Amino acid sequence: MSDLFIDACFGRPTARTPIWLMRQAGRYMAEYRAIRAKVDFWTVCQTPELACEVTLQPIDAFGLDAAIIFSDLLVSLPPLGLDVEFVPGKGPVIHNPITSASDVYALRPVEAEDALGYVGDAVKTTVAALPDDVPLIGFAGAPFTLASYALEGGSSKQFMKTKAFLHTEPAAAEALFDKLTQVTIDLLNLQIDRGARAVQIFDSWAGCLDPDDYARWGTKYTKRIVDGVRRPGVPVIVFAKGTGTYLDRVAATGADVIGVDWTLPLNEARAKIQPGQALQGNLDPGRLLSPWAQLEVAADRVMDAAGDGTGHVFNLGHGIYQHTPVDHVRRLVEHVQSVSHTRRITG
Amino acid sequence: MSDLFIDACFGRPTARTPIWLMRQAGRYMAEYRAIRAKVDFWTVCQTPELACEVTLQPIDAFGLDAAIIFSDLLVSLPPLGLDVEFVPGKGPVIHNPITSASDVYALRPVEAEDALGYVGDAVKTTVAALPDDVPLIGFAGAPFTLASYALEGGSSKQFMKTKAFLHTEPAAAEALFDKLTQVTIDLLNLQIDRGARAVQIFDSWAGCLDPDDYARWGTKYTKRIVDGVRRPGVPVIVFAKGTGTYLDRVAATGADVIGVDWTLPLNEARAKIQPGQALQGNLDPGRLLSPWAQLEVAADRVMDAAGDGTGHVFNLGHGIYQHTPVDHVRRLVEHVQSVSHTRRITG
Repeated sequence: MSDLFIDACFGRPTARTPIWLMRQAGRYMAEYRAIRAKVDFWTVCQTPELACEVTLQPIDAFGLDAAIIFSDLLVSLPPLGLDVEFVPGKGPVIHNPITSASDVYALRPVEAEDALGYVGDAVKTTVAALPDDVPLIGFAGAPFTLASYALEGGSSKQFMKTKAFLHTEPAAAEALFDKLTQVTIDLLNLQIDRGARAVQIFDSWAGCLDPDDYARWGTKYTKRIVDGVRRPGVPVIVFAKGTGTYLDRVAATGADVIGVDWTLPLNEARAKIQPGQALQGNLDPGRLLSPWAQLEVAADRVMDAAGDGTGHVFNLGHGIYQHTPVDHVRRLVEHVQSVSHTRRITG
Repeated sequence: MSDLFIDACFGRPTARTPIWLMRQAGRYMAEYRAIRAKVDFWTVCQTPELACEVTLQPIDAFGLDAAIIFSDLLVSLPPLGLDVEFVPGKGPVIHNPITSASDVYALRPVEAEDALGYVGDAVKTTVAALPDDVPLIGFAGAPFTLASYALEGGSSKQFMKTKAFLHTEPAAAEALFDKLTQVTIDLLNLQIDRGARAVQIFDSWAGCLDPDDYARWGTKYTKRIVDGVRRPGVPVIVFAKGTGTYLDRVAATGADVIGVDWTLPLNEARAKIQPGQALQGNLDPGRLLSPWAQLEVAADRVMDAAGDGTGHVFNLGHGIYQHTPVDHVRRLVEHVQSVSHTRRITG
């Protein structure tokens, strides 16, 4: 079993740079659209055979170095009692958002093995189907991002309700974050138990916080999750989008790998993280819409900024766009795999 | 005539820190809502007497140290031939977005004096009505932000169409940015001619770009605008939200004042800008939703990070939220004005 991706996550020397792409199973692939033409998003998440099939599509097509289980950040909300609906063209809607402290205290306790067993089953099915040299990444949402959905009732631009709640109901907010932290720990442990060889914590909206609020609502709870899922040989990745100006506070979670969006070059990111931590990123997904010649230059620039390539997992700085040409994905993967190998040999 | 705000913009010593707030004339004020109950947004922008009245509301209420003309970033689009509608609850919609190179070449030439004369008239009317010691700021949108609206057909989260156009139609994109740059220069000069004593260039969505793309599509054109509007004694402010990780490239526009959002502490921002440049910012507008005691701490932290306060204009890191308590605005203004004065005296 090759440990290329795992080795890179732990900063060990590798023969080349591993590459996977956030949201690599998705709408830009005809194979994915063919399934979604028959079945809705939530059903794919909840049906292990379908989640497995979709997870494998980009592995089969592009030879990526890691798979990530097909699921959603918001799977942990319904067991808590939040009524999540995925509205086509609009995204998730929570029909009973949290609007008061009493709503927080009314959230139900979650037994992850029962309520989220389908995620574990999807992981188990997928691990069995994957080639031995392609590890599966499990994932979950970070408490801040989950809380923002629960408080806003969906996605948001300004996070006004979220900030108002954190600032005016700090005790209830802490109770909410405690609950979300525990569910996230349980969900990630469940995935590791079922065969996930790495886990990623997504804090998609953390970048709306100032550095002090991130320390309080991001670092603190995410560190607790990192500590709560740590197992020998299983790297933990934290990706908090939009936090480049205070990446040191993301690094303070103690994760093995720090994800970086495209606004901060990796050499500058390296200076903000801790010794021994690896970096994951950070090509702008918009670059995949360029003609190949420019895309190649941009990919090379990411690798250049990663120094000798040790402790670097190539990825995008956010999820792949749905209008991405499939051929660009194929060429990007080939390019990163071959160029990073050549660079290792020629120094 | 007091030059407190102007002096701070040029980094000259001042008796205290001036304060104004982005979107200070707006929905959080009952006086504003009373007008908007009778007249739509676009009509207020286009009617000098109404724009003047609304611009003065927060000055009268809170004693802010600068006014900003009530207008919109998108005023320059209709004269180019783009059909902009402000849809309540949704924001601006462009009914004929740019989808091809030929759409760019079909844009109409703009005579700002004619097509945007109403902005100049609003400035002139407002300057006459303002107290002498409150300078009026004129403003316009930066080319990237204007282009993103024109290409997306409205606001966006991913800016996929914008990036696709920049990457696949670079010659047409440059022609578009040339046109938008010229309109912006003309619009800002018109406002200065009519009495605006400072101008701000808003690049609200620049933060979706990677550092290299910002250099190409942000710095380059914004610098041309800064150079094209420069007059003795009239400071130019550039605010490019979300660019904290590459603020040096914003500073490279040569603006007198660099606006900063709340993700980058001002002491760190200071290290990224050029000698002699001033800073504007950077309280999270979400902090205004806190109880006063926490808001006060957060405001003090901004002032602490601004060092001795020279070359600092206090502001939010983005526009004020519509649910902001009016009393918090009043107290924030009083607090910054009095504390910064006391600090200057006591060192």
